[in-house]
Amino acid sequence: MEGEMEGVPIILVVEDEEPLQEIVHDALKEGGFDLTTVASGQEAVAMVESGVVKYSALVTDVNLKGPMKGWEIARLIRQIDPAFPVVYMTGAAAEDWASEGVPNSVLLEKPFAPAQLVTAVSQLLNAGSPT
Amino acid sequence: MEGEMEGVPIILVVEDEEPLQEIVHDALKEGGFDLTTVASGQEAVAMVESGVVKYSALVTDVNLKGPMKGWEIARLIRQIDPAFPVVYMTGAAAEDWASEGVPNSVLLEKPFAPAQLVTAVSQLLNAGSPT
Amino acid sequence: MEGEMEGVPIILVVEDEEPLQEIVHDALKEGGFDLTTVASGQEAVAMVESGVVKYSALVTDVNLKGPMKGWEIARLIRQIDPAFPVVYMTGAAAEDWASEGVPNSVLLEKPFAPAQLVTAVSQLLNAGSPT
Amino acid sequence: MEGEMEGVPIILVVEDEEPLQEIVHDALKEGGFDLTTVASGQEAVAMVESGVVKYSALVTDVNLKGPMKGWEIARLIRQIDPAFPVVYMTGAAAEDWASEGVPNSVLLEKPFAPAQLVTAVSQLLNAGSPT
Amino acid sequence: MEGEMEGVPIILVVEDEEPLQEIVHDALKEGGFDLTTVASGQEAVAMVESGVVKYSALVTDVNLKGPMKGWEIARLIRQIDPAFPVVYMTGAAAEDWASEGVPNSVLLEKPFAPAQLVTAVSQLLNAGSPT
Amino acid sequence: MEGEMEGVPIILVVEDEEPLQEIVHDALKEGGFDLTTVASGQEAVAMVESGVVKYSALVTDVNLKGPMKGWEIARLIRQIDPAFPVVYMTGAAAEDWASEGVPNSVLLEKPFAPAQLVTAVSQLLNAGSPT
Repeated sequence: MEGEMEGVPIILVVEDEEPLQEIVHDALKEGGFDLTTVASGQEAVAMVESGVVKYSALVTDVNLKGPMKGWEIARLIRQIDPAFPVVYMTGAAAEDWASEGVPNSVLLEKPFAPAQLVTAVSQLLNAGSPT
Repeated sequence: MEGEMEGVPIILVVEDEEPLQEIVHDALKEGGFDLTTVASGQEAVAMVESGVVKYSALVTDVNLKGPMKGWEIARLIRQIDPAFPVVYMTGAAAEDWASEGVPNSVLLEKPFAPAQLVTAVSQLLNAGSPT
Repeated sequence: MEGEMEGVPIILVVEDEEPLQEIVHDALKEGGFDLTTVASGQEAVAMVESGVVKYSALVTDVNLKGPMKGWEIARLIRQIDPAFPVVYMTGAAAEDWASEGVPNSVLLEKPFAPAQLVTAVSQLLNAGSPT
Repeated sequence: MEGEMEGVPIILVVEDEEPLQEIVHDALKEGGFDLTTVASGQEAVAMVESGVVKYSALVTDVNLKGPMKGWEIARLIRQIDPAFPVVYMTGAAAEDWASEGVPNSVLLEKPFAPAQLVTAVSQLLNAGSPT
Repeated sequence: MEGEMEGVPIILVVEDEEPLQEIVHDALKEGGFDLTTVASGQEAVAMVESGVVKYSALVTDVNLKGPMKGWEIARLIRQIDPAFPVVYMTGAAAEDWASEGVPNSVLLEKPFAPAQLVTAVSQLLNAGSPT
Repeated sequence: MEGEMEGVPIILVVEDEEPLQEIVHDALKEGGFDLTTVASGQEAVAMVESGVVKYSALVTDVNLKGPMKGWEIARLIRQIDPAFPVVYMTGAAAEDWASEGVPNSVLLEKPFAPAQLVTAVSQLLNAGSPT
């Protein structure tokens, strides 16, 4: 009765490696999300700052070719929006999550199944919506 | 060894708008659930009260054309079964969840992805089963 | 940038009944997991002990034809790896979970939807990964 | 270095029976909280609405002599502040919490130990502070 | 308005070593709980079975002089009451909790502060009360 | 039966302001904890690094006179021990917790009651002990 549900949540993905871009793209699409994929932290932060599109969550690789790691990207975006849901993906850097991650974030260790990514994003959105 | 697993959990859906009925139907079916969709709170409460079918969870829109809002439907069904899992879907009324929702419920803000609905129902069923 | 993501998590499934083997297989594959299915607890424990394949989680029926129930299988595997994620599937034995289950495990009551299994495994892997 | 810590959180208590007023008063004081005790829901809601004192949490009996039950008091205060921490105290009405309580509230069944009240308030304040 | 709050929750403590009996006694009394201390699992299980006194939680040492360890005591009591709150205390046996503990229990590693025990019991009682 | 419980957990406190040192000291002592108070992050990190005393948790003010803020102290100590429990105390900097805090930490907003500090430390120790 509230009018049609238009659109779906849009996830901001930071990934600079093609095979992983595809895995993340396919998993999120399969779960019914939309997404924008960028290859660097600078682009990601700029897009959240601009506010042109309302993103619902950040999914970021930890190690990227550019100067900004995933840890820093999440911190900068949380400065803009303290409740922004964050999912990190990493292979080698899992042990750094406890010191470099932000509170209430999820770490996906590579290799992960697509369902883990979709569940992580869904849990953060569902838990974060009320109050 | 316990004999074949027959049937799947049946979700009771209260939705009076057709496009959303379809989105919810497709998402739950895709997740492997069965569902019964009714368009009003009176029907929903009557079906739980009759006990003819054993429903596993309630998924209800908050704003409906009939006299009963989703908040009231959930309260009436929780009076019948205090452990009944509840998922609300809403666009405009998200801010009322903190005062009108029941404990241990999940609020999905529109627009949501189908995976969020399936994850919400699964989490409530998985957490609620033991003890 | 960390190199391609090779492989996916491999789930160890203990199920001796064919229709359920298939349901579990299809659900986990659909979620993007790999799996090894064995029909007895002895095989399951031996495979974790050997360490030849690194399993990420245990999904076990509670009642099996062999001498070992799911409760015992989970305890033996937790002695080898105290952080091993555990999901039990049961129809008749749900009330025993509170006394026979291990901490931080999930119980799926039959009948369950495939999405519940995938969500349970994903939640345990996502929560268990850090620290 | 941020200047002295002045004051402590002030808890708003709704209780119209003297022995319980005293138990709650002594428990909260022992835990280091300040409190204001009123005997009716009207007074409680008026005090939160006025905003003269900044209260940190509501501790309310469910059954009161006045027309407003604890369930209604909590709903009205959550309409003013959706993140307001809520603790209910009840003997006979525990079974109604699942249908009448607000999300993220705690129910203390009488008889309870003073430490349970202090822990409930502390948990809600600690969890509620960030984000 | 529901009549005076008579009594407080009574905790069942299994401890056969005097200095620890005293520490646990003083901590629980300080938190406002009553307690019954027994030195063996047989006595503990018999007292829950008899139902003469309604105990609210079990606090048990893991290693005891008698034939029954804390792990077994908790399992037997959970067979009688699947929702019974359980706190284990242990020094050497902490690593066995993941395979021998029951779901939704708390492990206190020795040495622990009295406040940890009181918080553990309070959290389990507060969380367990509703639904 | 495991031999007497000797000692209690020792908390490492970083606070450079005297009135707060006293409040924290009295609260932790009242809860049954021991503590070492230092006035700077350098000292705190050096003491954890040296390993001479085994500390059980960090309680740190966010704003300190020295060059190191509480955010940085927690990150450095988590690099040494990824499971180290962390409690921040702050007045002005609460909004930075979402971007500067570490995962699974607790933020206490000033003014807080002594019971909140004791509950926060107890919860982190109780939850962190197993697995």
